[in-house]
This record gives sequence, C-alpha cells and structure tokens, in this order.
Amino acid sequence: MFEKRTDLALEAREMHGEDSGIIVREENKDGFNVVYAEVLRGEGERLSGKSAGHYITVEIGKDWMHERTAFEAASYLLASELGRLLPDENGCVLVVGLGNIEITPDSLGPRVVRELLVTRHIEGLDPSLFESAGFASVAAVSPGVLAQTGIESAEIVESVCRAVKPRCVILIDSLASRRLNRLASTVQMSDVGLSPGSGVFNRRAALDKSTLGVPVISLGVPMVVDAATLAYDLLEEQVGNASDEFVSVIERVLAGNGREMFVTPKENDVIAKQTAKLLSSALNVALHQMEINEISLYLN
Amino acid sequence: MFEKRTDLALEAREMHGEDSGIIVREENKDGFNVVYAEVLRGEGERLSGKSAGHYITVEIGKDWMHERTAFEAASYLLASELGRLLPDENGCVLVVGLGNIEITPDSLGPRVVRELLVTRHIEGLDPSLFESAGFASVAAVSPGVLAQTGIESAEIVESVCRAVKPRCVILIDSLASRRLNRLASTVQMSDVGLSPGSGVFNRRAALDKSTLGVPVISLGVPMVVDAATLAYDLLEEQVGNASDEFVSVIERVLAGNGREMFVTPKENDVIAKQTAKLLSSALNVALHQMEINEISLYLN
Amino acid sequence: MFEKRTDLALEAREMHGEDSGIIVREENKDGFNVVYAEVLRGEGERLSGKSAGHYITVEIGKDWMHERTAFEAASYLLASELGRLLPDENGCVLVVGLGNIEITPDSLGPRVVRELLVTRHIEGLDPSLFESAGFASVAAVSPGVLAQTGIESAEIVESVCRAVKPRCVILIDSLASRRLNRLASTVQMSDVGLSPGSGVFNRRAALDKSTLGVPVISLGVPMVVDAATLAYDLLEEQVGNASDEFVSVIERVLAGNGREMFVTPKENDVIAKQTAKLLSSALNVALHQMEINEISLYLN
Amino acid sequence: MFEKRTDLALEAREMHGEDSGIIVREENKDGFNVVYAEVLRGEGERLSGKSAGHYITVEIGKDWMHERTAFEAASYLLASELGRLLPDENGCVLVVGLGNIEITPDSLGPRVVRELLVTRHIEGLDPSLFESAGFASVAAVSPGVLAQTGIESAEIVESVCRAVKPRCVILIDSLASRRLNRLASTVQMSDVGLSPGSGVFNRRAALDKSTLGVPVISLGVPMVVDAATLAYDLLEEQVGNASDEFVSVIERVLAGNGREMFVTPKENDVIAKQTAKLLSSALNVALHQMEINEISLYLN
Repeated sequence: MFEKRTDLALEAREMHGEDSGIIVREENKDGFNVVYAEVLRGEGERLSGKSAGHYITVEIGKDWMHERTAFEAASYLLASELGRLLPDENGCVLVVGLGNIEITPDSLGPRVVRELLVTRHIEGLDPSLFESAGFASVAAVSPGVLAQTGIESAEIVESVCRAVKPRCVILIDSLASRRLNRLASTVQMSDVGLSPGSGVFNRRAALDKSTLGVPVISLGVPMVVDAATLAYDLLEEQVGNASDEFVSVIERVLAGNGREMFVTPKENDVIAKQTAKLLSSALNVALHQMEINEISLYLN
Repeated sequence: MFEKRTDLALEAREMHGEDSGIIVREENKDGFNVVYAEVLRGEGERLSGKSAGHYITVEIGKDWMHERTAFEAASYLLASELGRLLPDENGCVLVVGLGNIEITPDSLGPRVVRELLVTRHIEGLDPSLFESAGFASVAAVSPGVLAQTGIESAEIVESVCRAVKPRCVILIDSLASRRLNRLASTVQMSDVGLSPGSGVFNRRAALDKSTLGVPVISLGVPMVVDAATLAYDLLEEQVGNASDEFVSVIERVLAGNGREMFVTPKENDVIAKQTAKLLSSALNVALHQMEINEISLYLN
Repeated sequence: MFEKRTDLALEAREMHGEDSGIIVREENKDGFNVVYAEVLRGEGERLSGKSAGHYITVEIGKDWMHERTAFEAASYLLASELGRLLPDENGCVLVVGLGNIEITPDSLGPRVVRELLVTRHIEGLDPSLFESAGFASVAAVSPGVLAQTGIESAEIVESVCRAVKPRCVILIDSLASRRLNRLASTVQMSDVGLSPGSGVFNRRAALDKSTLGVPVISLGVPMVVDAATLAYDLLEEQVGNASDEFVSVIERVLAGNGREMFVTPKENDVIAKQTAKLLSSALNVALHQMEINEISLYLN
Repeated sequence: MFEKRTDLALEAREMHGEDSGIIVREENKDGFNVVYAEVLRGEGERLSGKSAGHYITVEIGKDWMHERTAFEAASYLLASELGRLLPDENGCVLVVGLGNIEITPDSLGPRVVRELLVTRHIEGLDPSLFESAGFASVAAVSPGVLAQTGIESAEIVESVCRAVKPRCVILIDSLASRRLNRLASTVQMSDVGLSPGSGVFNRRAALDKSTLGVPVISLGVPMVVDAATLAYDLLEEQVGNASDEFVSVIERVLAGNGREMFVTPKENDVIAKQTAKLLSSALNVALHQMEINEISLYLN
C-alpha cells in the first residue's frame, strides 16, 4: 500500500480519522490556533504510526516572515508552549540540530544551533556574568549526517549526552508535511523524541528517553512535501478515491524516484533562514526566560 | 488554457508535435545523444512559443556527477557544441550569469561566473602572460535580480555590454523542464538569447542581438519542474486526456500557488554546485581552447 | 620614502600635522565624537595626499557590536551625518558595494548591498505600496573586482550609472587605517568619491563627480592595518624618530611582502558581518527616512 | 618574560637553539625539504615547551596553489609522511577537524572534514562497494568550539571516540607560526596530539593518547602570525637584542591587544580553502591508499 509521508501528528490524524487513537483539543491563543494532540499508547501508535506522547502544533501563519511584531508574537507563543514540555529540574539543556546544513530543506537544525544563546561554558569561565545575566545553562551540537561523518547522528548524540549529562535534550529537525500550505507556517513540538525511520530525511535511529536517559523534546517545522505524496493526493482529489493503480502512474511521471523528489517553495533558501531565526528566538526565550531584546545583547 | 512550463525547445516540440514548426535532427556523439533543433521564423515561433533560431540539446545523463572521466567527456562535448555557436571574430566574450545566487535552483548563472577563467584584464596588465598562455579574452558579470538591485538585469547587461563591446555575449541561466528525468541531465544551448517572460525565474526583458547589438548565445540546464506542470501531466497520465477541470483540482491541492512551487531532487544544493562546475569547465575549454588540466593551472 | 597607508583623512592630518591644509572641527553628538575635516583644494591635497572635499568621521566605539541600544544609537547618528552629504533633489540613489565578497576584509561593500532596502523597482511594479510606505527610490549593485570580472569596477559603475541616472551615488568600501584601535570603531564618510590608487584594496580608477556626472558620497570603515605601516610605527615608537633603515628591517621581517599582509582582529569574519549590518541600517534610515523597526518590516 | 607564540616544533628549536633537547634531521624528498624532529622527554619538553614525540615538517612552498602537478606532488609526499605515523592495525580512523568554520584563519579543521572521503558507514550499508573499492574505514567529526557549543571540543572528541573506538585519531588544526614566509607553505604532523593551551586558537584541553586511549596524530598548517610576536621580532631585528621594554612599546602600538590580533595574507580566505583541499587530498590518499583520480570518483 502507498504510504503517505508526514511528520505531523495532526496530519496522521487527518488521514486516519477520529478513530486513530489520537485525542485532540484546539485552542486559540493570541490569535494563533494551537492543537494539543495525544497519541495513545498501543492503539494510537498502531493506528497512526506515530509514537505515543504529547504533540503541540502551533499554526503560526506567514506574517511572521515579514512583520517584526508578528515575529515576536510567534516567538513568545512558541516559547510558552515549549515551556509546557520542559521538565522543571535545574541543569543544562542540550539542544541538538539534526540534519545537513549543506542541503537547504534539511538545514533547519544546524541553522538553529548557530543562532542559539549557548551558555554552559560561561558558568565556569565567568560565573558572575552567568549569575547576573540570569542565564540558564544551554549547550548545543550539530552532529551532522551519516554521509558527512560516517557515524550515525544518534551515536554522536548519545555519546555527547553521556558526557554533558543534561536535564533534557531538545531535538531540532526539518519535517515533511502532506500539505503545501503547512510549509513554514506550522510548528510541531512533542515530548516524544525521534522515532527511527521517521520523516523524509532518513533519520535512522531512535533518539528518545529510552536511548538518551533523559526527557527528549522535539521541535520542527515542515520544509517540504514529498513529491509522491502530493501526487497521490492529487490523483485522489481528481478520481475521488484511492486506487492501487495510482502507484504505477506516479512511478511513471515521477521517473521512478518520487521519494527522492521534494515540492518546495521557490524561495526555500530564504524561508529556511527565517524559520531558523524564529525557532532560535523561541528557544532562547523559553530557555533563558528573557525578553527578545535582552537576548540580543548577548548574541552576535 | 493551462500553460505547461518548459524552457526546453525539445519539450516544446514534444508538446506541440511534428507540426510545431520545429525541425529536429539527432546525432550520437561520444555516446551522448545530441539534438539539433531549429525553430522556424513565423510558424515555428507561433506554434511552439519559442524564439526562432538554433537550439542544441545534449543529453549528458548523470554519470558525470560521480565519475571524473564522464565529467571530462561531457565537458569536451559541450565545449565542442558551444564552438558551433560562437562567432569566428576576435575580441572579448562577455559571460553573463543570470539569476540569484541566494536561491539554490536559480543560482546556476552566478555560480558558473565564479568558476570561469576570466582574462580580459590580463591582456593589459601582463601581455606576455596573456600571449604565452594563449588566453582568449573573457569577461564575466552576474547582474543579480531585480529584488536585489532594483534594476532589471537586462538594463545592467546592456550597459555593461556597451562599455565592454564584446564580440558576443553568453548568457548562463537555470531552466525549468517538464520532466523530472531531465533535471541536471540535459544541457540546452542556443543562438537565440533570452526571451522576455521565459522560464519560471521571472526574466522579464529580452536579451538578444536586437537589444545587445552582438550575437547572444544562451546556455542552461533545467534545475526544477514547475509543480503545477507536473500535476497537470500526472492527471493527464491518469485520466488519459487533458481537461479544463484539472486546473481547479490543481489549485486546490497546490494551495493556489503551484507556480510558486518547484519539484526538485532532495540533493539540489549539491546538484547546483556540480552543474556549475560542469558548465564552467565546458566554457573554459570552449573559450580558451585549452585542455582541462591546463586551465586548472590558472584557477584557484 | 616609506609611505604610511591610511584611507582616513583624520590620520592623514595626524601624520602631516596642523599645516597639512586640512581644517578640522570636532563635536560631541549623543556621546560620540564626530570630526568634520575639510581638505583644502591645492595645498591640502598636495600636503595630505587626500582629495579636496569634506570628510566626516564618527567614532562609534565598540559597544554597538554587543548592545542593541548602542547599535541603534550609532545607526541613527550615522544616518543623520549621511543626511548632511546627501543632495536635496528627488530621484534614485544608487548604492555601490565595492570590493570582493570572497575576501573577508574586502567584503564590506557587497555585504552592505545584500542588506539594503532596495526599492527602485517597486515604484513601477507596485506604485501604491511605494507611495503608502513612503519609500525613497534606492538601487544597489556590487560590481565585483577586476580579478572576478575582467572589467574595472569603475567601468561597470559608470555604465550602470548612465543607465540608472541616479541623483547621487554612494560608494561603500572597506578601508585601511594606521591604528588598530580604529578598526570597526570609526566610520568615515565624504563627498569626495574614490581616488584612484587609494587604499590597500587596489581600487584603480576614480569614481567621483567628474567621472559619474552626479554627486558621489563615500562611506567606509577600516577593517585592516597594513602590516608594513604598523611595523614602521612600531620601530618609530621604539627608536624615537623615523629612519630610512627601517625599510630594510621591515622587508626582512615581513618576508618582503608587508604590503600584502594585513593586521586584523582574530574575529574579523564576525566583525565584517556586524559592520555591514550597521552600515546598511544607517543607510536604510538615511535614505528612506524611516525608523529601524519600520524598515525591518520590508527586509528579509 | 615575553612569550613568542609558535605551534611549530621547528621554530621552537630555532628560538631555543641546538641545546633545546630537540634532535633534528633533514632530508630532500621529491624536491621538498622534510625535517624530522624529535622532542626528547624531560629535557626537550622543558626547554622547548613542546610535548615529547616526533614531528615531521614538510616545506611545500607555494607552487602547489597554482599548479596541478605541484599540488599532486605535495599531496603524495604528505600522504607518504603521514603513513609513517599511522599505526599498522586495522580498524577505523577518526579524523577530527578542530576549530571554528566561521572564523577564516581557524577554519582549516572543519573545512578538511568536509572534503574527506568518509566511508565508515559504507562498510555496513554496502559491503560489496566497500570491499571492491578497497576503502579503509574513515569517520570524521568537527566538534566546533566552546563558544558555539558550550562544550569543550575535547569532551566531544573523547565521547565520540569512546563510541566509535577507532584505531587512531587524526587531529586537523590551524596553527600559528612565528614567520610570515611559513604561512600556508609548511605542514607539520606529529604523533603527539594536542597539548592544552597550545596555539593562538585557545585549544584548552589535551587530546592525546592518555586522554583518548588510542594513538593521536596531529596535522596542521600555519595560517597566522600572532601580531605581538611579529612586533617583538621586528624590534629585536632593529635593536639587535631582546629587551623588556619592548613589551610596553608593543602594548602601546598594538593597542593592548596584540594577542588578539593576527597578521595574515590579504588572500587568507582563498588560502584557507586551498590548504583545506591539499590536506584532505593528502589524507584521502594516505588513508585509502588510492590515487587522487580514483578518489575523485567517490567525492562530490
């Protein structure tokens, strides 16, 4: 059977319907729609193909790309929703930028890491600055991808995690959605971590509480739609119901490599840069509990 | 009526059939398929929507991306086909890299310019080197795009052309094709220049012999397929013939912006870099009449 | 005789003393020191080696790199001083980013151009936006350097200038100073344009009112100290007065290429990025007469 | 006392003379001068300030930057000298690119990693390719710097090393030399690893056999001269012998931050790119025991 690719729990539920074992609640916050979804253990996992846990989806629209006030509003809302998932204990937070900075649609994670206010080392080097500024302890790494390092990113994250002993890990990742209008306008966060084989970017190993030993939050934004999934949706829309024969038509038109093809906006390079700015802004606010202006004092 | 977007004369003919006023001849050269197409003045222009003139399409496949020998074979074949279009007179050749280096699929032109062996200034600064090396006189500019400069790239090219007075101009551009399997595996060159409104990258003004006053050659490679065109082809393949109702289905599924969406390979950033290397290699060989190894002596 | 290299009129006066034909007046503005210097025609030019005209030097210190409020204060002060040099007429302003974006200390001009609010094209494409936003007409180009294009940047600027017919041209350039503590903490602007042979970055041709036909303003920040000049200053400081024998010592220690060597801060890449942000912010304010926040609405 | 900064064992010996506890032997190989130095345990360490062990310095000159044949000759010679330091056992080699890719003179390590033929993962994913190509097992990471990650690069390297269990580690690093004519024309390799506090780039923790548990080879090229060191040498050359008063003169002229100032060639960005290409070429040859042309088949 044809598998429609999506990294969004929201879309898994749309596809699998009300009986998908996913409980959903929506709220309007500061003018943005926020969807709280819970994938139930067992049934929810089996039916939806998503890991059990809590998923928060914030529909941030597109104004934040062009208006400073909308950008700041989105940053604060995302920071506040992230706050719900962060554990209360003290200690360092390790942010992990997954993906390949050389491949635009897969570059979100490493780009976010470059714009974070990283402070773990300041605690030791300049304790009085650390104290007076009111920093939280934040560390960040971009493990690269298998083709760059020859090492599973999960192996690198696990070993760094053992050395740093953070109170929690936040994974930043580029996602795939099923709908073009969700690109760069939807943010998904969860307390689930990363499942093996998820997404179109070939993350191959699990990164979650069971492998890292601490709570794992993930944060991502859809940057692409898988071309074969879009093609399938299109045929369904035209014909009215799914059909096995679609697959061979898609194979022919997509030259046999639909899963290696992405649909992206023309301006995807600009969008990747801006989305990374938004997520790093939200993370900086959420972790350091500071105003955006205050944070800018400490960033290049 | 729905307009299928392509910058390839070859595909215009495929769409419009044998009576499209395009005369075509194919040849196998060094294992590559080369198609010589002539769009006839009047009839050919009207039926195909392409400017009258000669188009050479070289199907270079994909091996050149991974094998040095295939890369060199493709470079030499492209250089030799370019040689057919270059005028015989002496004098400087001005290479123009169209497009926006910040937008990956539109970055081919500026990237090629960065890797050219530019020599026009050496003739004055070090005539004996110029002579002994056997350089041709080559200048190159990347005029940027309207949103970057506030100036039509055609205005910049025209004014630089008046100052430099080249014997001919070569335009390098990213193209759109209708077929995914042509991406980065087909090179089109022509003696036609650039038509206004052509392509998906919003080139808005003509750049040809009538506006520049000298012969204008264009050289490009398809980097994207327009999402709406792919969608249309897919529906046609499924349903069996074209239909006006496709347009509304496409609008719905592509969220109303199919012409702002591209289908590209996952690795498009890597492909753009490599394609720029191939085209600059072919140009360096064609213009300076040197071996690839010899050229590398003079490049960083 | 050894020539100490500097692009700052201020330093020319320091070297040549009170009788250098340069009239100077200082003012404290918003806590910053501003120096107004006039190089007198004839005498001043001959003694100082600088072109006759008005030079404004703003000593902005280093706080602006780390504090948002200091950054904004410096932007507004620079914008207001630039306003003194801008002609009153209406019409487009053409900003020219001189230098090579691939060479960090020479990259200031092209980097500034990338962050400008360019609007000339909007006047035609969307007149109501242009009007309602209150834009001035701004165009911008980066002509590259001779080794990249084979064309003197002056030739490109002159020809674009003929096509665009701006009311004035603003040249952005990386400068050299004689003193390390002026790097990235001094901004020089003038109504003089660019003299041939000036600076350490090999600008070879004049760009001024006589060649461009319109007023030419230049704006620059020192990014390097020439190694030989620093060496000479050091020997003078030690020995107490200048000596011809210094030159051979410098030659020996600098391995005969002191003029090809720069002294720069470790973090020069970061400094170049930040300085470009400051200058583009000042230009955007000066040209569009808008607040920084308002401008950010229109920039990526 | 003023400490002259150098990362080259060769220069340590020049400074400390024949009684520095460093044994030196020179050889001419393929037209290049190769210096084999051994810093003796105890006496050599104390007198020279360098760790005990073997240092190989290859004087590669500058022709390799412009001539393909010189580039290849230098690659093969460096590869063969590296071969002397590589342990014989089988198993993975972990290459570590130290430094900050955003700071040009400190970017050598991460740049080299980007151009390596990394193969460790292929052994599992495609064993028949791995076998038939004759690959060695190579992994590579760039741990970033403390200000980017909040984590000592030594902590990251140690933890990755524990996970990957390589047969040896090769550290790539930008170096400082005392002489301008050694920049980009001298390659130093050693079996010593990295000493804490060495160099001008603030490597703060040891990376050697005692901390990593496997043999550690280091490979580096000088990219800068520390400004204060150059100033000191200049004053010594002029005055004839060292003097304590130099320090205050240097402080004055270097504005109190001579250790934060570098002397570099104008074209340092280009030089960093090229040097990274040379080192990665040498490493690829040394590790995979292949010809340069053969390796290019597998690289982008």
